Parts: sequence; structure tokens; C-alpha cells
Amino acid sequence: MRGELSIDLSALCANYTAIDALSNTNCQTAAVVKANAYGLGASIIAPALYQAGARCFFVATVDEGVALREVLPVDTQIFILNGFWFARGGDYITYHLTPVLASIYQVEQYRALAVESKRVLPAILHFDIGMNRLGLSFDEVKFLSGDASFLHGVDILYVMGHLSSSEECYNETNEKQRLRFEGGAAYFPNVKKCLSNSGGAFLGDAFHYDLVRPGIALYGGCAHAGMREILRDVVSLSVPILQVKDVAQGDFIGYNETYCIDKNKKLLILSIGYADGFLRSLGNAGSLYFKGIKLPIRGRVSMDLVICDLDNLDEESYPKEGDMVEVLGKHQSIDDLAHDAGTISYEILTNLGHRYKRLYLK
Amino acid sequence: MRGELSIDLSALCANYTAIDALSNTNCQTAAVVKANAYGLGASIIAPALYQAGARCFFVATVDEGVALREVLPVDTQIFILNGFWFARGGDYITYHLTPVLASIYQVEQYRALAVESKRVLPAILHFDIGMNRLGLSFDEVKFLSGDASFLHGVDILYVMGHLSSSEECYNETNEKQRLRFEGGAAYFPNVKKCLSNSGGAFLGDAFHYDLVRPGIALYGGCAHAGMREILRDVVSLSVPILQVKDVAQGDFIGYNETYCIDKNKKLLILSIGYADGFLRSLGNAGSLYFKGIKLPIRGRVSMDLVICDLDNLDEESYPKEGDMVEVLGKHQSIDDLAHDAGTISYEILTNLGHRYKRLYLK
Repeated sequence: MRGELSIDLSALCANYTAIDALSNTNCQTAAVVKANAYGLGASIIAPALYQAGARCFFVATVDEGVALREVLPVDTQIFILNGFWFARGGDYITYHLTPVLASIYQVEQYRALAVESKRVLPAILHFDIGMNRLGLSFDEVKFLSGDASFLHGVDILYVMGHLSSSEECYNETNEKQRLRFEGGAAYFPNVKKCLSNSGGAFLGDAFHYDLVRPGIALYGGCAHAGMREILRDVVSLSVPILQVKDVAQGDFIGYNETYCIDKNKKLLILSIGYADGFLRSLGNAGSLYFKGIKLPIRGRVSMDLVICDLDNLDEESYPKEGDMVEVLGKHQSIDDLAHDAGTISYEILTNLGHRYKRLYLK
Repeated sequence: MRGELSIDLSALCANYTAIDALSNTNCQTAAVVKANAYGLGASIIAPALYQAGARCFFVATVDEGVALREVLPVDTQIFILNGFWFARGGDYITYHLTPVLASIYQVEQYRALAVESKRVLPAILHFDIGMNRLGLSFDEVKFLSGDASFLHGVDILYVMGHLSSSEECYNETNEKQRLRFEGGAAYFPNVKKCLSNSGGAFLGDAFHYDLVRPGIALYGGCAHAGMREILRDVVSLSVPILQVKDVAQGDFIGYNETYCIDKNKKLLILSIGYADGFLRSLGNAGSLYFKGIKLPIRGRVSMDLVICDLDNLDEESYPKEGDMVEVLGKHQSIDDLAHDAGTISYEILTNLGHRYKRLYLK
């Protein structure tokens, strides 16, 4: 009576290896495991990626870094994308967490920690190359490079940028942002460079530099056909049928009567809803699959339930109460479901709920 | 560097009391605490509601029921809305869980458990009164009432229905569904009746019967002004500013360049994203608040970050890195945020993420 979420660790590791093979041997491949490894469970995902060869890991917050350090050996680096806050300084030192510094203020605070702790502390410098999200401006980069004392006690391991449209292979913004990144990086000629996220890893050698840091691609997210060719699906999800029921023409389905039944027929009531991260925007828009046949969702998605049509199935193939129906798997990828929900696969993954039985396949 | 999610237990209990006061003293008021009490933490919410007087609790799944039994005294009833499955029969008995039976198949299975365990087992019978979601059809209700042996060993505590548009006070569907419910209930004249969810509790005496079962209203969700008048907000959420930054006219904000900057200005980068349940549909649509002033979201919501405009603030009121910004609170309710996201407050609550510091206010 529970949904089953399967996470294929061998596919995950195969994806890591495949992405790593895109760049030359001088370029390392990190793993982005923020947001609990995109909802899949960082405490299991990260050690699996370590086995596959990953030694650099990116998370968003200090809390995520602390939790990750508990499950990763000492020969790994954990980078905190959301930067540095002095109040948590002790945790950066104790758990060997390396901040991705995004502002002059953060640099100042981190330098103060280096002074206070009488250590040289590692960091990444984050350049804003066009997203106008986190990161130092070009002027700030220039300023930092011109005053060695400003970075006293801070060991810059990498300079970093972030592409805003990397999944669009032919978007000229990618090259424009890469050149902006090079412009900033030129002020730190002896420092290694890290630019590309998943999409960037597929943009060719010029985008690889010293460290590539895929996230979504590890988990099977494929924004374009080139990614689909080399990546495997990692997640599958099936949910049980609670009821198979007869309904009458002219009646309505679900909350607020948004779907009128066209003829007497049978419907399925399934144990999944938006409280399981099955987005409400899938109402009257998404589908599930049984024996490879598409079952369109009718009416609104409820908190714990969703209702599907059996029209596309032959009657002899009709499922019964207790049978499992595919939400994600061979017939529907995270990108397919995201498309129907009007979002991206990232949001599908990070919303995966906690009522499923989670199975990790080795 | 963490968001702070505050859950006001006194407001929760005040809401329970206010809803209970809508019906007469012969009508009990249950509490719907499925989906981890709509994302707020059932292990804390349910005992608080017990203190406020609740003795009947509704959850969706057996797993939720088992977890809830651990924190509730023996003088409570826990009802499983998703029904009954024989494979979990032992748990229903051990943890004193009462299924809401939705199909003839479930009735048969439950009766088999009663026979096998040599007990009389309690149940609710769920009538489908028009949602075409879970529940027995009118014909099935008639059939069950006509054959006493079919329910042998099953003690029907309540007959139950579910309204599909109860938050729309003037929707004629409510009365139509109420009459359908009465039509079915007439076959079980000596059994107590439970019809109304939160919206139904506000539809007047005719909708109350013996047991009202509010969910969203307990948590401060108000679909209309009548609810707003008597209910209090339960949830507030604020998140820290990671960076205050200067941006240039003509530049773009966030992924895929969906927002072009109209003039040189400052932006805020905040520590919240769709991995925290801050729906991606809020990109270029939602707002946050600082000192009561609206800060529109610019560009897409990222996994861990969101970007806000400061245009509406006087320069002397500009916040600095580390300051907290209101996501939910005095200036923005769960219904307000849901409206901007194109959804309902229920989805806002059940998606509330796990990276916030959670504070329960007594």
C-alpha cells in the first residue's frame, strides 16, 4: 500500500563515469549533492559517487556540508555553494568545509576566521558571469586581485563561474559567459578554474577547465538528446492502486469538478498526491503508465490521491486494486513528467516525497 | 544562515477551538493530520490538538497511523483515509487503526481480518458522493445494507462522504452532494455521520452531523473571508539574505535570462529555493517582504536561491547580508503565496522543506 521509489546506484555511477569521460584526464569531475542529493539521499548517493571516483562534492548549505562530512572519507573536499557566515566558522574548520565565497563581505569574514584560527583556509572564489545571482562582480574580482593582503590567510583553490543556459547547446550566451569567466580568471592566473555544471560538461573542451561539477546529469536529468544518448535513468517510481471504480457519463472527477466524464467507464484511484511531491500542476495534464500504456490523469491532483483514466487499455488488461502503476520508469522519465508539470526535472527530484518505500539498487 | 519556520501551536489550538464552536455540542470535531500534519510535523501537531480536545484523528496511510499511535493516548481514534489492505492487517489491530473502507473489496478484506482475528473490528464506510475519487457507489451502499452477513464482525462507527467544492460557499454542488450523502446514509439509519472537511464546517448546521473533520483550516488556510474572520495564521517563515548586490541595466537575472534589468540597482540573493518547497512557479510571479514592503521575485526560482528586487524600498531601509526576509507571516499568508504560485495553500504547506530551522511556539 506504499509507493516504491527505486534509486539505481549503478546507473548513478555509470553517469558519473560517462560525464567524467567527456573531459580530458587533467580535468577532475566533482559531484553536486546539494538538496539531499537532489532529493535522492546524500548519505547514500555521495559514498556511491566516491566509489565511482568522485573526490570533490558541492552542497548548498553548511548544514548539508556537516551531514555530508559524516559519510565521506577525509580525502574529499566539500564545497559550500551558499558561501560563508562567520557565525558558523567553527563548523567550516571542524568538518573541513570549503566555502564558495560570493561577496567581498564573505571574503572579509573568512579572512577574519583565518586570522582568528591562525590557519591558512581554503576557498573557492565565485565570479558572477551573468546570472546576477551569487558571485563577485568583475570590479570586485579586479579589486581582490590587486590587493594581496586582502586575501591573506585564504588559499584560493579555484575560481568559479556558473552558466545560466548551459542546457541550450546553441545559445550564444554560453560562449559570452565563458569569456566573461576567462576575463575574471585572468586576474588569478595561477588558480585552477571551475565553470561547468551538467550542461556545460556537454559543451566541449573549452568549457571544462580543471573541474567540472555535474548535478542533474548524475541523476539522469537530460535536457537534450546529446545527454540522453549517454546517460541512464536513475529513478523509478511506482504506486499502488487503491480502487478501481465505475463512473457515469456526465459526472465530474475530483475537486472543483474540473473534468467531466465523457462516457460510463472505469477509473483508477492511486496512492500518490502532491504531498508526495507529485506536483499539483499535473492535474488534467500528466499521465501514469500501466503495462506500458498511458493512463491520463483526470481532474485535480489531491494531497494523497490521483485519478487516472483507463481508456487506452484493453479491458482484458485492466489492473486491479493493489496493482502497481508506473509514475517514473521505462515509459516516463523525470524530464517527461517535468514537461507535463510545466517545470524541470530538478523540481521533480527535489520534491520526491517521504512516504515512499525507498530502495537503493546496487 | 538558515531559514526559520515558526509553527504557532497556540494559534493551531485556537483554530481547533474556533472550528469546534461552529457546530453544536452533539457534534464532535476531529483533526486531519495526514501528510505529516500538512507538512508541519504530526508528532507535535497531533498531541497539541489532543490537548485542545481532539480525540479523532484522520491520516492517509497505515504508516502515518502507526507513527501517530506512538504519540497519541489510547483514548483516541485514528482513521486511515486510504482504506484497508489485508497485508497490513496486523498493524490495524496492533495500533488500533480504523480504516475508512472505500470499496466492496476492502470491506471483504476487512471482514476476513475480523474473522481471522476473532474480533469485532471498527470501520468507517466511505460513500462517494460525487468526486468519483475513493468511496462506495450508491448501488454498493444499498447492497451492503441489504446483506447483514456481509458486514459480519465489522462495527460501522460512521458513514462518511467528502465534498468536492466546500470552500465555495455558494456553490450548489455542496447541497447536491449533501443530499446524495443523506441518500446513502439512510441505508444505515443508526450509524453516525461524518461529512464535512474544513470548508464544510463553515457551511452551517446542516453540514455538521456527528463529526466534522477539518484539516487545512486548523493550519490557517482560509479559502474565503468567512474563514479568515475566525482563523489565525499558524505558520511564519523567514529566510536570510546571502548577498546584496549591484546589477546593471540591460543584464539578465537567473537561469535562461527570463528577466531583463530595467536600470542600475541592487538585488537581494536569498537562501530559499524550490528544494525548500518554494515552488518554481513563483519565478517572476511571487514576492517576499522586508519591513512590510513587497520585494518582487525576479527571474526564475533556483534550487537553493531566489532573487528579489528592492525597488519598493527607500534606500535608507535597504537590508544587509544576514538580515532575514519574510516569506510567510504578517504580510503574506499561505493563501497569498499559493495564489502567486498558481496553486492552493495545501500544496504550500505539504511542500515546506526540511532545511529550515523549525520552531514550535507554545
